[in-house]
Parts: sequence; structure tokens; C-alpha cells
Amino acid sequence: MAENVTRESNFPEWYQNVIRDADLAETSPVRGCMVIKPWGYGIWELLQQALDGRIKDTGHENCYFPLFIPLSFIAKEAEHVEGFAKEMAVVTHHRLKTIDGKLQPDPEAELLEPLIVRPTSETIIGDAFQRWIKSYRDLPLLTNQWANVVRWEMRTRLFLRTAEFLWQEGHTAHATADEAREETMRMLEVYRDFAEHTLAMPVIAGEKPENERFPGAVSTYSIEAMMQDGKALQAGTSHYLGTHFAEAQNIRFQNEAGEMALCHTTSWGVSTRLIGGVIMTHGDDDGLRLPPTLAPRQVVIVPILRDKPEDSDVLAYCDALVTELNGAQALGAPVRAIVDKKPLRSADKRWNWVRRGAPVIAEIGPRDVTNGQVTYMRRDALKDGPKLKSTGIPRADFIANIGTLLSEIQDTLYRAAKERLEANIIGGYTNFEQIAEYFGPSSESEEDEAGAAFKGWVRVPWSRPTGADLDAVGERLRALKLTIRNAPLDQPASFGACVFTGKPGIEEILIGRAY
Amino acid sequence: MAENVTRESNFPEWYQNVIRDADLAETSPVRGCMVIKPWGYGIWELLQQALDGRIKDTGHENCYFPLFIPLSFIAKEAEHVEGFAKEMAVVTHHRLKTIDGKLQPDPEAELLEPLIVRPTSETIIGDAFQRWIKSYRDLPLLTNQWANVVRWEMRTRLFLRTAEFLWQEGHTAHATADEAREETMRMLEVYRDFAEHTLAMPVIAGEKPENERFPGAVSTYSIEAMMQDGKALQAGTSHYLGTHFAEAQNIRFQNEAGEMALCHTTSWGVSTRLIGGVIMTHGDDDGLRLPPTLAPRQVVIVPILRDKPEDSDVLAYCDALVTELNGAQALGAPVRAIVDKKPLRSADKRWNWVRRGAPVIAEIGPRDVTNGQVTYMRRDALKDGPKLKSTGIPRADFIANIGTLLSEIQDTLYRAAKERLEANIIGGYTNFEQIAEYFGPSSESEEDEAGAAFKGWVRVPWSRPTGADLDAVGERLRALKLTIRNAPLDQPASFGACVFTGKPGIEEILIGRAY
Repeated sequence: MAENVTRESNFPEWYQNVIRDADLAETSPVRGCMVIKPWGYGIWELLQQALDGRIKDTGHENCYFPLFIPLSFIAKEAEHVEGFAKEMAVVTHHRLKTIDGKLQPDPEAELLEPLIVRPTSETIIGDAFQRWIKSYRDLPLLTNQWANVVRWEMRTRLFLRTAEFLWQEGHTAHATADEAREETMRMLEVYRDFAEHTLAMPVIAGEKPENERFPGAVSTYSIEAMMQDGKALQAGTSHYLGTHFAEAQNIRFQNEAGEMALCHTTSWGVSTRLIGGVIMTHGDDDGLRLPPTLAPRQVVIVPILRDKPEDSDVLAYCDALVTELNGAQALGAPVRAIVDKKPLRSADKRWNWVRRGAPVIAEIGPRDVTNGQVTYMRRDALKDGPKLKSTGIPRADFIANIGTLLSEIQDTLYRAAKERLEANIIGGYTNFEQIAEYFGPSSESEEDEAGAAFKGWVRVPWSRPTGADLDAVGERLRALKLTIRNAPLDQPASFGACVFTGKPGIEEILIGRAY
Repeated sequence: MAENVTRESNFPEWYQNVIRDADLAETSPVRGCMVIKPWGYGIWELLQQALDGRIKDTGHENCYFPLFIPLSFIAKEAEHVEGFAKEMAVVTHHRLKTIDGKLQPDPEAELLEPLIVRPTSETIIGDAFQRWIKSYRDLPLLTNQWANVVRWEMRTRLFLRTAEFLWQEGHTAHATADEAREETMRMLEVYRDFAEHTLAMPVIAGEKPENERFPGAVSTYSIEAMMQDGKALQAGTSHYLGTHFAEAQNIRFQNEAGEMALCHTTSWGVSTRLIGGVIMTHGDDDGLRLPPTLAPRQVVIVPILRDKPEDSDVLAYCDALVTELNGAQALGAPVRAIVDKKPLRSADKRWNWVRRGAPVIAEIGPRDVTNGQVTYMRRDALKDGPKLKSTGIPRADFIANIGTLLSEIQDTLYRAAKERLEANIIGGYTNFEQIAEYFGPSSESEEDEAGAAFKGWVRVPWSRPTGADLDAVGERLRALKLTIRNAPLDQPASFGACVFTGKPGIEEILIGRAY
């Protein structure tokens, strides 16, 4: 990483540098699509595994639905069309042909009905639900899918906003509104707990305002995380869709009284965007820092070799150490440790793993072998002032305590993020002008975000205006590049006046700049 | 399943019925794309997990590359174009618009360069390799991707041939031809061993003839399995690509002497087609039979409930049993057992699990509770004549022996398939006419395959003709709907004359009808 780019000097550039230097992902020649490299994909695999377990534990089953959606399906749900129609990849031909020496779509192979590359799968899954659901006995129907989706984005940023991304999308159908709402909240809580425990990323769960709802939803809930530049990252959403999609797609069931009724549906998803969240929550000016739960390698042993006879003793010592470590448990799973034997200088290897965020990096030289000890660095407490901090302890203690050490690192990262979040949600504002003054004018472009001051979020009461009144609020905020993030689930007993309308407040909302 | 459709009476219909009755998958409204249902997807997850472990154990790392490939990338490798250009989904627009009241591709959002939905990723991954590889120190580069791919197919069959399917594709780059060839063979062997141990599906590994090579490959190897109708299923392929793709995409490295040289690349893949192979290898006239390695539920406990007070004892007994079973190990992993508490008649539940192929189905009634025993059926030995066969043993023995029992079932399924394969590879033919007579005329349509007699494969020597001579051989075979499956790796010391040309044979090949 260029020495001088820090989180403070230029957060967006720092972010890109961390991704590059930790070898997580890169842009591809396909507009807006990324290549996820092994270290980045390894993080995704761990994240996926952990979340998949929670999704299954709450009774959902994985399925796989088609990548393509017929145009007519998308057209069925009007708000859904409105929300997505502007950014979809459209397949119009099914064959190429060389014409006049140039390979091109074969005009004779034009599809009768264009196909959309799924931007989300409510419509195609709804079509299956409509076939699968006959009676109340088939409900609830609880499905989930891990898949790639495509939304044509004009301005992309690795992990945070890409044309193609990977995600899971849960889709469920229920007999009653209450059950569907309960499911919506259950999965929101799964996401909140998962973010906290697996990503070590504290979040605020709450309901999105009407103008930020998923196209076609009755209510949309989100978890919002605070990045180290103070901006919000919407890290997951859970939607109660009412009977909108059921009506559009005829998802009906025979109830216990023998009558036909519409199902109430939900959907909820998180994506590779979470990796962006992990980077911006935990990274420091030396690169990525990974919570041990998500580190493809939790303990990296770098042997210090000097082309001397004792090298073989060092390597043997490292190999034995790694074998024992991999037999130990940490955070509920076997420890993931390796010896880095690449033919590079050990200082280069050390920095490579610092930048990649390996939680524990041990450097083993002949003296460690002689003394039967392990000298290691914690990535979450890398330095003492400007100097690297390392600790030497007896080998047996290192092995016996590895689970505790990794749990401690997980906890330290979480607590630091939690403190930042709590310290930077600011209350006390009573009118919009104060908020405008606090945040100051917005930067004109993403490039100008560079040195933007850390502002965090404000938490204020509002009267929950709707329709044109809400549009007016949205515009005032947009002029400052602000948005309402959500109305936290956790609300006080009484409220001040609405900062926008002066009317009595009915809930508190979070306002901030966001990704 | 309709009682009268058996493997013998109508194999294709039997296959479709098994998929329907085991609730594995279904066709979707999107031409050629399937919906994989929970039981089918659960099999895929187990298969994927097992193979992924083997791919990682051989040093490969997972990545993720873009779904879309620019048209110009595909155009670079001439043979590759030739082989795939006829069947690709082409994205031409990135936005929809309502024009004259109809939602359609926005003419103003036409892409400058059409994008192809990946049919396979040699070209887009090659582009990344070209950026990643600088020197011999970066080699070998060993990557793998789990992804969806699309090939526009005119005639589709669930799992066996669908427009969209799921697969893994390995892509590697090496400094020398020898190393790349070694990798090609290593992964072929991984596939062979995986098919045998995880799918309980014996296969013959060998090299494809020139006219059956992957478009752009120097050599293509396959594993071929024999289905219960005697037809071959190509179950996996491994390709040595020489420097063809490296030339087309400029994948070069600086060798130890400081000179620039082309990389040698490989690719290899298996897909959801394997699930079709498992069905056609192990299914019987009562439905699917799953090898325990692939069964999402290995042991299903069906409580026999009679709306009487003792029901609660039965349920408690079943719950305790399942808890103990899930704590036991089988085939190297924790046992996957459940109690089926659905509100259905227990006989219906039993048949549901028979059709889905659960390896062990236990039915527990009050008498079992009183006697402290477990009454169970083995799906691999379901009947004694026309009657269902069940065994009662003490509860403690059932739990203690569950690992052995599941291993035995795995083994029984494998041995039956292995015997069928070995007994139906027929040698001794010395000319083409004998082969033609043995196989008889081909059926005109897939519908006519219904009552086709079981023929298996013939194994004959040939002189490995090339070019026009090979084309002639291909045509003679094609007229009988036959193809050369592969030249098995395992060859005798000497050969008879070529059955096609009469010239001295140089290897033996397998000929058969195929999926």
C-alpha cells in the first residue's frame, strides 16, 4: 500500500488499496463485473457457510431457480417494474453467427420474448410457489437460494456496488400476514446476530421509510453498519411483501375452511457487499484486519530461513506446530493455520499477511526452536507506537491458548466497532437546519469524498410523513447527500417534535450519508 | 410413480417419474432451465462439498469470475468459437423501457459490444491469467470456480441436458506441457475416484477421440459411466489445452532463463448432470436410491401414530433416537437423521422416503418403544420377493452399528453398478458390421427409446484414424446413434486389427449409445 494513503487522508482510495494489497478482488474487462480472487473468495465461503447454517437452522431449505426471467414476469408487478426496469441485462438472442467475417448475434435467432438476467428472483420464484402451494398444509414454504444476480450499475465499486454480485435470497410464503411479518423480523434478527457474531460488525436493525422500500414491498427492514468514514452501509434487508406478489402471480392456497386465499410472502437477502463492510469496519492503515471467523487462514507461521543447516529444524518445528494448531478448536471450528513456505524474504511474507489481515502471524527462527517458543503478532494489536509488537511464549501455551487468543481478537475487533457506532449516533437535534449545519455541504463527486470529515449519523424524531410530504423530506436530505437509514427497532417511550414538519414525532430515525 | 412404468418398460419415462416423485427438480417456464428443489439441491450440496474438498486438497483455490464474456473474447480462439457459437445466450441491452404501453428492451440502451452468458470460462479466466502471471514463480496457477453456465440446447432433459446448469470448472496454467498434462491426468483421477467413492458410480477413464475433443483442446479425457439402460453418460471431462488459449490471450511468463514463454493450460469440469447419473445408476422401480454419502437424510424415522395416549411415548422415543444417531459418525461425517413428523399417514410417509431414496427408513410404533428396538428397512434391499423387508434390532445395536450399516449400503450400491459395468463391456468384435448387427438399427426419436433393449458398450481395437478417415468413422457410427466414448487408460499389451480400417490396431476404444 502506498505509505501515505490512510483512512483519514483518503478513505475511498484507502479502500481500493486494501482490496488490491490484500488480493481480494479486481475489476474485470466486463463493465461493472468483478473477479473475486482466492483470498476474497475464501472469506465469502466462510461467511456463506456460517449464514447458511443459520438459514437452515431456522427451517429454510436451499433450492435453485433459473438465472433468466421472462420479460412478462417482471412486467406483472407494477412497482417492481418501476424499481428494477432501469438496470437489467437483457438477453435477446440465443445464437451467434459470422456475418461478413464478423461474429455477431444471429438475426434469425432472436428470442420471441426477451429474457432478463435476474436482478432478484421474486417473480420467477413466485411462479414456482404458485405451482407448489395448494393448501394450508404446504405452508409455510421456506426457501433460500445462493446465486449470482445482475443489476446494471453506472458507477461501481468493488464489493459495494457491482453489476454482478453473489448473494443469498430467501423467499417464503405464509398463510397469514402475522406469520409473514414474524418471518420478516426473524430473518432480520438472524442477519443482526450474524453481522455481530460472524462479521464482528455491529449494526442497527430497523424499518426503512416508505420511499426506501424494496419495489413491491409493504415494509422493508434493514441492518445498517457504520463504516470508519462515518457513512452507513446497508448490510442486509428483509421485506414483508404482503400479498402484492401473490396477487400478481396468483399464489393462492386453500385454507382450513376450504376457501381459496392469497399467500403473504417475504424475501430477504445479503450479498458480497458484506465483504466491503468487513473491510471498512475493521481495516486499518496497514491493510485488512479479518475477524478470525472469516479468516481463511487464522494463524500464519512464517519460518525465518537463512540458507543455513538449521533451516530444516525450523521448518520441521513449524510443520509440527501447524499440525497441532489445526487439531485445536477456535470459535466453534477447527483452527485454520498454515506455514508460508513461499520463496520470499520473511519480512515480505510477514507484510503480505499483515495486509491480508491474518489474525495471528508467527515468525519462527532458530532461537524459537531452541527455546521451544512461539513469537507472534496479533493483527488487532500490531504496533506499540510506531514499532511492531510481538510476543514470545512457550510453544505448549501458544497451542493450548490459541482458541482463547482468536476469540479475544474477534472480540476486540467487535468492541472497537461497537464503540465507534455508539459514540457516533448523535441525538439532540430539533430541526433540519441544525442537521444541515452539522453535516455541512455535500461533496460534489466521489473523488471529493477523499478528505470528508467523519460525521456519523444523527438520530432524530419525525412524524413519519408520507406521499408528497415524504418526497419533500427526501429532497431536502438528498441535497446534502443524506438519507434516512432506518427507524431503529429499539425506540424510546416518547418523542420530541418532528425535525422536518414540527408535528409530534412518532418514532426516531437515523440519518446519515451512505454507500 | 405410475405403477406400470419400469426401467424396462420405458426408461426415459421412468427417469422423469423418479425425478418428479423424489421431488428433485422440475422444468421451469424458462425454456430449458430447471428449478432444483430442496431434495435435489441437498444432493448437489453434498456432492459439491465432497468434490470441493478434493479440489482443495490437490492445491486449487476457488475464485469467482464474471458471468458475462465480451463477444470479442469468444472470437479469439477459432475452434472455441466453432464449438460454442451455435448455442449461447446473448445480452444486447442493459435497460428496459415502456414504449407504446409495452415493456421492452430500450433501443437507446443497446450495448456497444454484446455480452455472452458464459457457456464455459476459458476465455474470461484466461484474460485474468494473462494479468496475474508474470514469471515462473507465479506457476503453476491452480484455480477453480463453482458457477452457473448457459448453453442454448434445443432438446433438454432434467439434469442431463439443460440450458442453464451448475458446475465447477477448474482452470490451471503451467510452465511446461508435461506439468499441464500431469495436472490433466491428476484431475481425471480425482473425478474417477470421486465418482467411485462419493457417487458409488464406477466409471471408465480414458481419452476422447479427436472428433469429440473440447473445442480448442489438444487432448480431452473423460470418465464414462454406464446407466441402467446400457447407455453411456459422460460424467466429467479434463482437458489439456496446450498453448492454444495462451496464444489467443497472450498468457506468457518469464522463465528461469529470463525469456518469455507461453503457458500450457488445462481445464476440467463436472456438473449437475452427475445427479442424472446417480438416478440412472442406482434408481430402481420403486424410485430413487441414494448412496448414503449423497443422501441429505440418511436415516428417516417415521413414528407410527394412532391418535392415542402412547403417541407421545413414540415421539419421545423417536426424538431421543435421532439425537443419538446425529451424534454418531458414518462414512467420515456425522449421521444425518430426522424424525418425519408431517401430518400424513405413516404408510404415505414411508413411501415418500422410499421414492426419495433415503438409505434407511425406520418405522417406530408402540411395540418398538416397549421392546426398546428399532424396526427398519434398507432402501438397497427393500423387498423380499414382492413384500417389503424390515428388520427389528435392539435400539443400542442400531445406534452402535449405524456407521457400518450405511457403509454397507454405499458398498452394495457400488458393487451392483460395478458388476453391471464390467458384465456389459463386450469384446471380441472384429469388424464394423458385427458391431452394427449387435446394436441393431437406432430408434428414430427419443420417444422410441422407450423399450430399447439393453446393449451396453463394445470394446474394440482401432487404428486411431484422423481427419477425413475419422469423419467417415464418425458418420458410420452416427447412423446407428453410436459414438466412441473413450480409449480407456487401461490398455492391453497388443491389439487386433482396427474394426473400421482393418489396419493394425493401436488402442482399444469403447463404443456405445450415450446421453
